[in-house]
Amino acid sequence: MGKSFIYLELANAIAAQITNGVLKPGDRLPSVRLLCQEHAIGMNTAKRVFLELEARSLIEARPQSGFFVSKLPYLRLPLPETSRPSVTAHNNEPEELITKVYSGMGRADLTLFSIGVPSGKLLPAAKLKKEILHATRALSGGGTEYEPLQGNLQLRRMVAVRSLAWGGNLNENDLITTGGGMNALSFCLMALGKPGDTVAMESPCYPGILQLAISLGLKVLELPTHPVTGIEIDAFKKLTPKIDLCLLVPNFNTPLGSCMPDENKEEVVRLLEKHNIPLIEDDIYGDLYFGTQRPKCCKSFDKTGNVLWCSSISKTLAPGYRLGWIAPGKYKDKLLKLKLVHSISSAAIISEAVGNFLKTGRYDTHLHHLRRTLQSNYQNYVQAIAEYFPEGTKTSRPQGGLALWVEFDKRVDTVKLYDLAMKQNISIGPGRMFTLQDQFHNCMRLCIGLPWTDEIKFKLKQLGTLAKML
Amino acid sequence: MGKSFIYLELANAIAAQITNGVLKPGDRLPSVRLLCQEHAIGMNTAKRVFLELEARSLIEARPQSGFFVSKLPYLRLPLPETSRPSVTAHNNEPEELITKVYSGMGRADLTLFSIGVPSGKLLPAAKLKKEILHATRALSGGGTEYEPLQGNLQLRRMVAVRSLAWGGNLNENDLITTGGGMNALSFCLMALGKPGDTVAMESPCYPGILQLAISLGLKVLELPTHPVTGIEIDAFKKLTPKIDLCLLVPNFNTPLGSCMPDENKEEVVRLLEKHNIPLIEDDIYGDLYFGTQRPKCCKSFDKTGNVLWCSSISKTLAPGYRLGWIAPGKYKDKLLKLKLVHSISSAAIISEAVGNFLKTGRYDTHLHHLRRTLQSNYQNYVQAIAEYFPEGTKTSRPQGGLALWVEFDKRVDTVKLYDLAMKQNISIGPGRMFTLQDQFHNCMRLCIGLPWTDEIKFKLKQLGTLAKML
Repeated sequence: MGKSFIYLELANAIAAQITNGVLKPGDRLPSVRLLCQEHAIGMNTAKRVFLELEARSLIEARPQSGFFVSKLPYLRLPLPETSRPSVTAHNNEPEELITKVYSGMGRADLTLFSIGVPSGKLLPAAKLKKEILHATRALSGGGTEYEPLQGNLQLRRMVAVRSLAWGGNLNENDLITTGGGMNALSFCLMALGKPGDTVAMESPCYPGILQLAISLGLKVLELPTHPVTGIEIDAFKKLTPKIDLCLLVPNFNTPLGSCMPDENKEEVVRLLEKHNIPLIEDDIYGDLYFGTQRPKCCKSFDKTGNVLWCSSISKTLAPGYRLGWIAPGKYKDKLLKLKLVHSISSAAIISEAVGNFLKTGRYDTHLHHLRRTLQSNYQNYVQAIAEYFPEGTKTSRPQGGLALWVEFDKRVDTVKLYDLAMKQNISIGPGRMFTLQDQFHNCMRLCIGLPWTDEIKFKLKQLGTLAKML
Repeated sequence: MGKSFIYLELANAIAAQITNGVLKPGDRLPSVRLLCQEHAIGMNTAKRVFLELEARSLIEARPQSGFFVSKLPYLRLPLPETSRPSVTAHNNEPEELITKVYSGMGRADLTLFSIGVPSGKLLPAAKLKKEILHATRALSGGGTEYEPLQGNLQLRRMVAVRSLAWGGNLNENDLITTGGGMNALSFCLMALGKPGDTVAMESPCYPGILQLAISLGLKVLELPTHPVTGIEIDAFKKLTPKIDLCLLVPNFNTPLGSCMPDENKEEVVRLLEKHNIPLIEDDIYGDLYFGTQRPKCCKSFDKTGNVLWCSSISKTLAPGYRLGWIAPGKYKDKLLKLKLVHSISSAAIISEAVGNFLKTGRYDTHLHHLRRTLQSNYQNYVQAIAEYFPEGTKTSRPQGGLALWVEFDKRVDTVKLYDLAMKQNISIGPGRMFTLQDQFHNCMRLCIGLPWTDEIKFKLKQLGTLAKML
């Protein structure tokens, strides 16, 4: 790790103490001077540590007194426990529940806390429109012709350039474009899994990934997962003999929002390498960090090409464009063939437009705004939860992403809460959707991708009132 | 069958006699008056029979003498035999050959007789560009948001309206959009097949479909196929006990260009219905008929929802758009779920643009021109083959579509011919690509989707000279 990242290592260590409750709200932090002495770092590095923690709203400065652990309400809300799914594969798909919840998509009369994408109001539609127009002019045949099999070159180049930000070092030949993030995961699972194989995932996990695995005849092994640090390494080590494939969302996954520490990422990569188990890494939320530094990816620790890094623009730019990509490492030939056979080409106009958008630097400006909005949404949501939800409600403390995981008292059945809430035109994601096992009945996912308004606040209040009645 | 189609029935019967060689070039046809008497039809109907045959270039009028079987050179070239593949499933994929041939895609220095799409020069790029621009304005969020799961409503409506032309009677709820035609077939095979199942197909068959089946772990049973009338019904009947699934391209398939007669389509539909074997019908070439009437689809004889009708715009409008659709009959729920899981949504802008393009009627104008071009290409190609290719060369006589199937004398190895031709920057599709068995070594596919020029003619001459040397 380079010298410039020492501050980040230290900030992460302190952040972990805060989110884990070692440091409590109102606790005083060591002074800048003390930090310098204790860790043998310079003044500037120490100051950056505090700036980073302040950017994450974990600490606040008081004039003439120094830094204190923030008293933000979310620090008073307890954290959900590490999940403890069964250590054997299960296949109890909550199909009806998922169909019921998803049938509300796109209904303008609903407050959709259940959706997992940023609101259209937070996306740069006008700027993208111009890029689309430009693409129809720039492409041979106006975009009616097939692209190269691997995908638009400019787009692949721009994705490669951006890989430096997460500790990767990709070039354009390492990448294959796909029809969105789910399409990327679908290709990876098809290429590397065969029916009957066991794939390990976080628990809770995004329902679409669970359904995808089932539709391909795979068995799903859910892993014990901590809401802050992701999958538990010790438990994972013990389970590796049972695993043929691993699909993780290490950065700000949905619904938990956990982010694996670098050392855990590296350990998982080494472990899977050793056992020759491919790691499919879904990084669609990685750019949505609330702090000042993008988290690394497992792919950045990959020395043997065993990690298939997947991402898309669906969570950051334009879900409706259906554009994603894979850096498949040593599995590139398999993936290329699968793409040829199942889809031949990506949509030429879309790829060209997004490639150019990335090149202009507008993507970074947009991401900067989107991250600030999501962070502020997160704080507003947690404030509302602390204020309106039943005593004892636990919430995750994501440092990025689009989701908040809420755990009620055991007696609150979130499927019942869903039905009650729908009568008030509020849609939530009941916890049972996010597992193939009999768990999370008292949990729910709230999406924080809707712009914050008094109405949203009121809807959260209604939700809290309903939960208190159960 | 309605009264208005009597003429077509009769025209098809006469056409079959011509293409099968019962009627020979130069033979005189019965007079209009005699036709009326023999078939108890009116003068207008009889005249339409001859107009239809003339439109297909099968007959020509001589003033004061009546109608004669056309002396066009392709009627002098013999027809390839019905294919006789092994009656057990094979899996001998010509992977290296396919990779070699496809690696030439998009190379501007090659004459690509090997590609299976119409040249970009034959596509209405400028008009589509306007529709794309319009779509970014019309859609909520400029197309950045997800569409409804089933796909763009306007597009589905327009596809449903057009189904009347092939004897279908779809409505918008019968249809699901996909990311292109291969994606449609991929979803159908995934939804209905499981590894180890046997899927029956025409032989020869499009390599992408063979590879798709293999990638899903299916066994492929190739069916004896006649170059004019498609799969042999008697052979098919005997094989049904071995079949779990059937995937046919009944109209102008590639590479043969065969078109199943209506009665065969109906018989296959009934047979599969009886045995509860789903029929996946790939109709991507159906709109590219050279005659005056679009051929029917198997789907038009489907009374129980057992036929999954698939099509796209890749062969007619814009391969690079990646847009197709399925009318999945009684399998709709399965297909919808699969689409949700593997791709969530189609690309919103593309669907909106194409839906509007279909609505304006510009699609029909475009198709009219494209069909005329392809028909005239076909005649020019066959003329060149008759002139330049070795004595005894056989060719298919497609009445639509994009491909010509050429059968040389047994001693001509088309893989060798491919290598020789590539030295002169000519790319062809060797016959072995189109089967998983040890056959078609002396055959090749020529795509007729390139605009006819003196250069193309010269390249065909070069190809003929090379074939004579082998």
